[in-house]
Amino acid sequence: MAETNVNNGVNVGALLAAREALKGAPQAAKFTWRASCKWQNGTHSETKVQGFHGLGQEQKHKTEFSFSADHPEVFASEDLGATPVEYVLVGLASCLTAGVAAVAQNRGVQLRSVEAKLEGKMDLQGILGIDSDVRNGYDDIKVTFNIDADAPKQEIEAIVAQSQKRSAVFDIVANPTNITVEVV
Amino acid sequence: MAETNVNNGVNVGALLAAREALKGAPQAAKFTWRASCKWQNGTHSETKVQGFHGLGQEQKHKTEFSFSADHPEVFASEDLGATPVEYVLVGLASCLTAGVAAVAQNRGVQLRSVEAKLEGKMDLQGILGIDSDVRNGYDDIKVTFNIDADAPKQEIEAIVAQSQKRSAVFDIVANPTNITVEVV
Repeated sequence: MAETNVNNGVNVGALLAAREALKGAPQAAKFTWRASCKWQNGTHSETKVQGFHGLGQEQKHKTEFSFSADHPEVFASEDLGATPVEYVLVGLASCLTAGVAAVAQNRGVQLRSVEAKLEGKMDLQGILGIDSDVRNGYDDIKVTFNIDADAPKQEIEAIVAQSQKRSAVFDIVANPTNITVEVV
Repeated sequence: MAETNVNNGVNVGALLAAREALKGAPQAAKFTWRASCKWQNGTHSETKVQGFHGLGQEQKHKTEFSFSADHPEVFASEDLGATPVEYVLVGLASCLTAGVAAVAQNRGVQLRSVEAKLEGKMDLQGILGIDSDVRNGYDDIKVTFNIDADAPKQEIEAIVAQSQKRSAVFDIVANPTNITVEVV
């Protein structure tokens, strides 16, 4: 396998070194991710992301990222941002896609293009309180990858499966995650 | 209660009318939300959101929303966007906050400010494959609301609880959601 010529832009060597380092320092592997949201008006909010904690100390992104969220006009809102449920799809898409690049790099597979289309089905009878048997969230999310890479389809499928197996957002959405909501 | 003077910018009348209309047309309540992700390089991707399906027909946001995601420099990445797991916090924050505004409006409570701080704890021993007993996703998410409103604390807490009860993203994260991943 001509692994030496493969470059998907992922520094797998650094990740493998981090894994070895964290094996001996499990406390450093404990991360806290943060977001700070301010209501604007109606269903419109702005959420900022910059600081996080990990490797035993405070960290921050190079820049602050800011995200507008809103509901669309069909819900009598101003449509000033993506909906909250679309942000979940953004997180899932980007997590699986980053994983595909990392796993492909680790397996010596050169990627040429990776595209993912996501669809989440939701019955609004849940959030509108019409039918208490209908859940509020997605009934089902479908992710369809279209990948052009220097590998047979079976190997590409195995890369996607491994990305899914190690994906943080896949796990958060597919499995129950404890959430505590407080008012101060 | 001086409900007539309360204006949080949420058109509750339109939402209640939509609820009545959808009671008689459950098929129109079936929505599909979409996102389309393109790998850029390394762990960097761009995800776009515009079209969705609902009320029996194709819909679209007024503008296309585009989101860069990446991993931070401490993971040997370029930090060209928020991390995928931070996008989940953005979705959760904005969903609960929009709900607070809508429920407060419905209950005749004037909001002055709503802020939410979110923290998600994650042990990287999961995604790095160090310890198979450690999950990939968040162990725990904490949402802390700070709300200035024209109501006693107990009433504000009840508004937040009702928002949580009807939140799509809260449900998606707190409860299992089926995800199917395919390669074409």
